[in-house]
Amino acid sequence: MKLHNYFRSSASFRVRIALELKGLSYEYLPVHLVRGDHKQPAYAAVSPTGLVPTLETDGGERLGQSMAIIEYLDETHPQPPLLPADALGRARVRALAQLVSCEIHPLNNLRVLKYLVREMKVAEEAKNTWYRHWVRDGLLAYERELAQLPRGTYSHGEAPTLADCCLVPQIFNGQRFGVDFSGLDRTMAAFEACMRLPAFQKAQPSACPDNEA
Amino acid sequence: MKLHNYFRSSASFRVRIALELKGLSYEYLPVHLVRGDHKQPAYAAVSPTGLVPTLETDGGERLGQSMAIIEYLDETHPQPPLLPADALGRARVRALAQLVSCEIHPLNNLRVLKYLVREMKVAEEAKNTWYRHWVRDGLLAYERELAQLPRGTYSHGEAPTLADCCLVPQIFNGQRFGVDFSGLDRTMAAFEACMRLPAFQKAQPSACPDNEA
Repeated sequence: MKLHNYFRSSASFRVRIALELKGLSYEYLPVHLVRGDHKQPAYAAVSPTGLVPTLETDGGERLGQSMAIIEYLDETHPQPPLLPADALGRARVRALAQLVSCEIHPLNNLRVLKYLVREMKVAEEAKNTWYRHWVRDGLLAYERELAQLPRGTYSHGEAPTLADCCLVPQIFNGQRFGVDFSGLDRTMAAFEACMRLPAFQKAQPSACPDNEA
Repeated sequence: MKLHNYFRSSASFRVRIALELKGLSYEYLPVHLVRGDHKQPAYAAVSPTGLVPTLETDGGERLGQSMAIIEYLDETHPQPPLLPADALGRARVRALAQLVSCEIHPLNNLRVLKYLVREMKVAEEAKNTWYRHWVRDGLLAYERELAQLPRGTYSHGEAPTLADCCLVPQIFNGQRFGVDFSGLDRTMAAFEACMRLPAFQKAQPSACPDNEA
């Protein structure tokens, strides 16, 4: 398999975690978002949306959208599972994942921050306030969701799931922008438990071949 | 089942479509977002995130996040299916759904538009330009994705799927804000095919008990 991705992209990071948790090897193909590689014809031929990541399967199929890719990996390589066995558990894990990927991340990805500055002439500080507002607001909601569930080592139970694949990159991004993580005890405990696993360590931006940090 | 929702909320509309496609009856419990019902203690007791919709199952479980709810309904009431039978097809349908629910809708929901105006002091016209920009940009990406797939009546094949549950409410929203739909031939053909089905008609905002149009 091949993964077209960018070291700092949250959505790319999610898929890298899933690949590592499954123990699947893949070819790392960097797409430099800040330099605009994703808008070049070479990448348009790979991805009609121009978004990263894109997973290329061994059969040559190209798949987009990180959560859809992770579910595909989970269906085609079921061990270890990234979703619980019961429908209710799956709904809870997917809802946590979507709380990050539909409520937080879309508001602070690169193209949205660029639009705020370039098109809307928003000042740097107001942009950073926007960023921190949505991350903190969303993580507080994540914490309240966790408070409804039995306490576990990870976001849902005793094994990492799709929810953790989404949570961890969001915490990394929040750290870069100085988000206040106070009052997020269960969320941060899940994050820290994940970061003790080699899969999360190997997938993190600083371990990527295109890392510039 | 009970659905806590709002007639004009896109995420609520997605779940109403799925319930109608499955032929499932439910109690409609309105949560008036513009009046702020979702921030009142009564709704906080229902949903820790304060977001709509929330599905209450007959067993009293409360589920959030529209795509997670629809997958739950599909798993617990498999007929008619809202996802294809094969892993690749499911990945394609989920990616289309997420293109709407992770790339377009989060940027134009009510709380984000409110933040732009109240906190960032963005002018009404700039707010509307923002809205139309992300909807059109995202739908053009949706159209390019469809162009990679065999032509079908709906977004994916000959039956409505999770992708159509997400697409149709987004088109409704775009229509309210005067989005330019030119060049979206396959996307709009899928939308129109959906709207010929009674399930989509019954789920639409103007058919809701709390409709104010």
